[in-house]
Amino acid sequence: MKIIVIGAAGTIGKAVVERLGQRHDIITAGRGSGQEQVAIEDYASVQALFARTGPVDGVVVAAGALHLGPFAEMTPEQFRIGLDSKLMGQVHVALAAQHALSDGGSITLTSGIDAYHAIRHGANAMAVNLGLEGFVAGAALDLKRGVRINLVAPTVLTESVPLYGHLFPGFESADGRRVALAYERSVDGPETGKVYRVY
Amino acid sequence: MKIIVIGAAGTIGKAVVERLGQRHDIITAGRGSGQEQVAIEDYASVQALFARTGPVDGVVVAAGALHLGPFAEMTPEQFRIGLDSKLMGQVHVALAAQHALSDGGSITLTSGIDAYHAIRHGANAMAVNLGLEGFVAGAALDLKRGVRINLVAPTVLTESVPLYGHLFPGFESADGRRVALAYERSVDGPETGKVYRVY
Repeated sequence: MKIIVIGAAGTIGKAVVERLGQRHDIITAGRGSGQEQVAIEDYASVQALFARTGPVDGVVVAAGALHLGPFAEMTPEQFRIGLDSKLMGQVHVALAAQHALSDGGSITLTSGIDAYHAIRHGANAMAVNLGLEGFVAGAALDLKRGVRINLVAPTVLTESVPLYGHLFPGFESADGRRVALAYERSVDGPETGKVYRVY
Repeated sequence: MKIIVIGAAGTIGKAVVERLGQRHDIITAGRGSGQEQVAIEDYASVQALFARTGPVDGVVVAAGALHLGPFAEMTPEQFRIGLDSKLMGQVHVALAAQHALSDGGSITLTSGIDAYHAIRHGANAMAVNLGLEGFVAGAALDLKRGVRINLVAPTVLTESVPLYGHLFPGFESADGRRVALAYERSVDGPETGKVYRVY
């Protein structure tokens, strides 16, 4: 199968490419790296990506920014970071992908453990990650031609602990190889509307 | 206590004003009606509201638009309706209210049953309503001075069944009087970070 991985240069993306690349043809995509350039916050950029690749059998998104910061000082502009990037960016991919995917093709998006397990200063992250669960549940019931959509909700990546571990005190990490399995289940399995929690 | 009700002219708002008005001083607010005019989608408008009212002890929001429609035809602009209005609009109120509320004051927002119970063509509504649960859970852990934030997730209102009942086939409705109790629990009770499900 032909699978686009958006965010292919990231910690999760690299692990997904390695895992799915064993049996599938991967098109790597990213903001400034990979075979195809795309900015998920820009719907025209997402549409242009699918126009260039032609029909595909799956798309994985492991990209999107969030804002973490004290609520007392938070501005609407900061809250918009997560809404525009990780939430609306992934919605952009799903909206465009539904028309580019083969019958039964899959859309796999990424949320995070903090959808249900609070982190400090996480109002934006928790809104976005839980919002993605609602989006996937709703979209799954509405997609045509057997097109599927699922969500992977990983804990902090073991490879990211040096950078982000302090934001997840006491949280057990999972390495990229383990997290990549969830993406494989979504792409190669039969399910839709599912949240694969890796924690 | 002095309580602002935004969306006071709506079905929920009217019931909340009737219930809370028995023991509190209510300031009614709405886009085009009530004692104070406010557009929650516009942060400056929300800030101006609190500047006019001065310190208050609680704010209730029963306002915010969503988009319902087939996913196959959905545009990013349509998806933005819910993000900008019901989600970001209520976030605007919470961001501004935290600085205007008295110690221990309350913020009460509104989601809906479809956060967890799917409706057809509900990708936007479900993303927004579940996103609000994440937001409230995160903000509650971060608010200072005992300021509280809760969410009411009502089923379809009995009074709204003639208009919206067809969107909720087989869903049991609840009348405004019953839904208003949840707002009272949030305003007058001790809890924070809570979702009051009225269904």
